Amino acid sequence: MSTHAPHRFSGLSRQVKVSPSMCGHNPMLYARIGDWTWETVSDLCSTDVSRARDCNGNPAYLSFVYYRVRGGPRMNPHSITFGDQLTVRSASFGFGKENVLTLHRIAMGEADTGADPALDLREFYETPRDDCLYVETLNRWISRSVTGSNDALIGASPEGFRSDNLPPLPAQYSPRGEAGTARRHGTFHPEGVADHDLVVPDLTTTHAVDLARDLNGVGLLHFASYFSHVDTAVLSVWRSLGRDHHAFLNRRVTDVRLCYLGNPDADQDLKVTTRLWRSRRDPRIETAEVVLREKRSSRMLAVASACLLL
Amino acid sequence: MSTHAPHRFSGLSRQVKVSPSMCGHNPMLYARIGDWTWETVSDLCSTDVSRARDCNGNPAYLSFVYYRVRGGPRMNPHSITFGDQLTVRSASFGFGKENVLTLHRIAMGEADTGADPALDLREFYETPRDDCLYVETLNRWISRSVTGSNDALIGASPEGFRSDNLPPLPAQYSPRGEAGTARRHGTFHPEGVADHDLVVPDLTTTHAVDLARDLNGVGLLHFASYFSHVDTAVLSVWRSLGRDHHAFLNRRVTDVRLCYLGNPDADQDLKVTTRLWRSRRDPRIETAEVVLREKRSSRMLAVASACLLL
Repeated sequence: MSTHAPHRFSGLSRQVKVSPSMCGHNPMLYARIGDWTWETVSDLCSTDVSRARDCNGNPAYLSFVYYRVRGGPRMNPHSITFGDQLTVRSASFGFGKENVLTLHRIAMGEADTGADPALDLREFYETPRDDCLYVETLNRWISRSVTGSNDALIGASPEGFRSDNLPPLPAQYSPRGEAGTARRHGTFHPEGVADHDLVVPDLTTTHAVDLARDLNGVGLLHFASYFSHVDTAVLSVWRSLGRDHHAFLNRRVTDVRLCYLGNPDADQDLKVTTRLWRSRRDPRIETAEVVLREKRSSRMLAVASACLLL
Repeated sequence: MSTHAPHRFSGLSRQVKVSPSMCGHNPMLYARIGDWTWETVSDLCSTDVSRARDCNGNPAYLSFVYYRVRGGPRMNPHSITFGDQLTVRSASFGFGKENVLTLHRIAMGEADTGADPALDLREFYETPRDDCLYVETLNRWISRSVTGSNDALIGASPEGFRSDNLPPLPAQYSPRGEAGTARRHGTFHPEGVADHDLVVPDLTTTHAVDLARDLNGVGLLHFASYFSHVDTAVLSVWRSLGRDHHAFLNRRVTDVRLCYLGNPDADQDLKVTTRLWRSRRDPRIETAEVVLREKRSSRMLAVASACLLL
């Protein structure tokens, strides 16, 4: 057990009582799960992720390059509230010196995790449990190449980081292909969303970086804040359809994928483009696609796709 | 040790390694400290705060009615970052059936808390350590009197809640007087701020409730979100003086007090009035006063006062 693990985190399992700071209509659950990725990697890879330095002595950050949250009508980010007891199982997989993939399975209730079989990617891709929320994070070591700027971030594996003891990432269960598609095409759905009609082709809005909410402890746009910008984009497109705040707050996010491509400087506005698709089979099911760009440079910062249940 | 205490929380002390989800230019540190209040009260008052119910079986919330964060140039909310090791000492004090005051002392480094003397309010008011951040929270049990509305919240102590075993709140160290002043006068400084000049008399702005960030797991404006609205108000007044985002991000919040008076409904705009004072002795020291109102009804929601070091 590492010294920075939370209460009752042993190896790859933890029992969590949900507190107000990790639930609600805000990015705090995503932020907390990101901590669990860092703790899992710290534990498995003999590296204190929160204090890592590259070979030049500069801070190295285990950045999020892809983040997927998949649940369903029963278990999703907004179904979790104060006092819920969660059992979280985590596993990390290696590929290359600078990358690591971590999978979390979040179940309601206090399970005997000792008797629980190890979590693997096959479960996530082929036999997911409908009473669980799964979170997949792909992380890469980076550092700033220019002090104070978030523009030029470069790969930088810290000394002492070991991922060769992790199970390798199986090619058939790697999200790298779809992350690559999102990066190249600016969408997870270059052929459109199957069995869906395009309802809102492209709505463009401008968001400021929120200096009272968005930045993390080292001045970068926090990976969880990107989800707030995606949510705000969904709210804008829903409002354009005449839907009110109740509809928005009652939505269920059953599957959301976010591919991170860059980090804006703090004084930059974001240009946000949102497209909405509706299922032909069930009109309560929609997919929102959101692209975040730095407005001044048009540099792409993130591509997201969210499945929503009205 | 209660079952919902975090790692290495024993009685009234905890060791915390700072993670990305609890620091930065966002309200997450305030949110996390609020969790520690709930955990401390749960531990000391034989009540699972996160699952409490009033005598009618409705959820009861240990709401925040007053929240003060006091540090200094060395230790303040923005001086805390990834990987910092904190030693947190907490104590609660009772007054009345529905109220509890909790004090936290946050020190950098890993102290032997076993040898540490108990924390008391005299230390906070008379002999504070300049290497510590102190947080004082005054909490009151409430519940909704109308389902789904945040307008009519009423006092409601849950069955089984015991505060008679807590040390009583000493009258000379009670913030109730200044909270009462703030409530009655709409300011913590009805006579003005001593030895300060008024630099910006009153700047009024409008904020929307941010549906992608502000609401907690039960649909109330999260107490920590109020701090973001205060920070945004400070940013507006600083921008009116021509200051840029660097100045804002480099500010130090050395003392901030927030008195909570109401909770807005989610579709409401906030009318925000901000006043700025500058020290005659040191022009780098300012005090911002912020009042949040529900715009439609003019109902006062919060009064804040923040000492800032440029």
